[in-house]
Amino acid sequence: MISRDPDILFDAARAGSRTALARLLTYAESGGENQRATAARAYRGSSPYVVGLTGAPGAGKSTLTDRLISETLARGPFDDTGSTAVAVLCVDPSSPFSGGAILGDRIRMQEHATNDDVFIRSLATRGHLGGLSLAVPDATRVLGAVGFAVVLVETVGVGQMEVEIASTADTTVVVVNPGWGDAMQASKAGLLEIADIFVINKADRPGVRETRRDLEQMLDLGADGRWRPTIVETVASTGAGTPELYEAIEAHRRHLEAGGLEVARRERVRAELDKVLALILRSRVADLARGVAYESQLDALVAGETDPYRAAEALLESA
Amino acid sequence: MISRDPDILFDAARAGSRTALARLLTYAESGGENQRATAARAYRGSSPYVVGLTGAPGAGKSTLTDRLISETLARGPFDDTGSTAVAVLCVDPSSPFSGGAILGDRIRMQEHATNDDVFIRSLATRGHLGGLSLAVPDATRVLGAVGFAVVLVETVGVGQMEVEIASTADTTVVVVNPGWGDAMQASKAGLLEIADIFVINKADRPGVRETRRDLEQMLDLGADGRWRPTIVETVASTGAGTPELYEAIEAHRRHLEAGGLEVARRERVRAELDKVLALILRSRVADLARGVAYESQLDALVAGETDPYRAAEALLESA
Repeated sequence: MISRDPDILFDAARAGSRTALARLLTYAESGGENQRATAARAYRGSSPYVVGLTGAPGAGKSTLTDRLISETLARGPFDDTGSTAVAVLCVDPSSPFSGGAILGDRIRMQEHATNDDVFIRSLATRGHLGGLSLAVPDATRVLGAVGFAVVLVETVGVGQMEVEIASTADTTVVVVNPGWGDAMQASKAGLLEIADIFVINKADRPGVRETRRDLEQMLDLGADGRWRPTIVETVASTGAGTPELYEAIEAHRRHLEAGGLEVARRERVRAELDKVLALILRSRVADLARGVAYESQLDALVAGETDPYRAAEALLESA
Repeated sequence: MISRDPDILFDAARAGSRTALARLLTYAESGGENQRATAARAYRGSSPYVVGLTGAPGAGKSTLTDRLISETLARGPFDDTGSTAVAVLCVDPSSPFSGGAILGDRIRMQEHATNDDVFIRSLATRGHLGGLSLAVPDATRVLGAVGFAVVLVETVGVGQMEVEIASTADTTVVVVNPGWGDAMQASKAGLLEIADIFVINKADRPGVRETRRDLEQMLDLGADGRWRPTIVETVASTGAGTPELYEAIEAHRRHLEAGGLEVARRERVRAELDKVLALILRSRVADLARGVAYESQLDALVAGETDPYRAAEALLESA
């Protein structure tokens, strides 16, 4: 029987047990004691290089992810860890399903699943109080700690949550399609600000030149001396453009390393720490609101004997 | 020279000084020490009856508010306080302007401004950390404490903030216009859930019957034994329907009083206390994030010596 102890599971996962790794990821996406113990160990391990992929449904993200897995495996060790292992997290904030849910367009990707160097998992929020915005970083750290050098985080949909998740990656790839207005839609969804690389996928269709021009124009407006997003054309269904996409990711990684990958990661860790602080404080408010002291402050408020500011401070002092 | 002491200002405002009242409202919408002292006094006074008016721009809210002022004054004392004084707070969350900003459609309303029993003020968030969601309740309590029996809170726009502000009223009036889709728009904007009364304003135009039918159908879907929103037809430009609107508000007030106005108000005060708690906690996180301890926890995180959950708890313990 498989252990429930995160430390034992980490050792087993490092030794190659997929069952152990799956359980650790379940802990990362759920609340409770094991989540904390899992995070405690995960954040002490090495940080993987995280590539986020986002874009509207149907843009071809899954097929592109599939191609990127093959390309990464073919290129050999990604960095000085000597590891070629690639993990994929599929994140769909709108879906309550997780783990076992393999949709039609995931089937091709699953062919990699028999490869020891590839691990694919859907991620959902199952009780993690911080939701996916904390579950995803926790899960990528679990994968890094057990030896994956690269984690691809593919988000489905273009809502605020998807943008937030994708933007926590080291390199964020935004996938659009050729055709009128697609670049504009990406801009509206806030993808222009988070993209390090734009992929015009399905580049065998008409409208590639116009979409590239639209993207270039929008990027010109936002030019401010930072990294200017690369634009790569791909046809994920045939594999065309995959080497160029891989090299664009590599180029962005080198750019980050030159400018201080550690600086960028420190900012990300800062944002994460702020989220956890807010999360703990929110749960403290919830605890307070269940207490007797809260009801008596409320009585005093209704009776006009205090004001909400004084009442709140009295509650916080007594907590 | 006018005092800066909230207690002196309250006494002056109760005695009729509009300058003193205006200053108190400025304190209520701004941050700082005077805001707290103003709230401390305001929440110890009597609570006014608050009527919220919301709806899409151009629906005729200002003209309707103007008519409601006249109607309320004509009817005599609103409740057992014997006061006929009516205050109007115009809230535009999207506008940085406040106080002096009188737009075209406000001019008619300003004719009341020479009446001692009427007070009209635009409200903006000027530094109040809790923003308008706390500044508006604070301001209504200031008005109640200086003797206004009724406060009309008119919000401009249909965003989340407007819905939140309007829903903190005792009676919430949602203004729509006749015509295809207006009821549906109101529903989409979340106005169906907060409305105690629907006004179909500009009811001299075609489409009234259809709009009423749409509203009734949507209300049927949500029927759950609570107050079923009344539907009133008005033509604010001529004044037609104003008495019916006033009586619908009165009917809703009697309904609340029968079912326990205090219960409803206690829930509102509870929501307000939670907001203030969250506000204070947020500002504590902000304070923490400026401290030395925070940076050293961040160092430990980047070095892989801790995890965000442990780091956050260490920070909160030391705070």
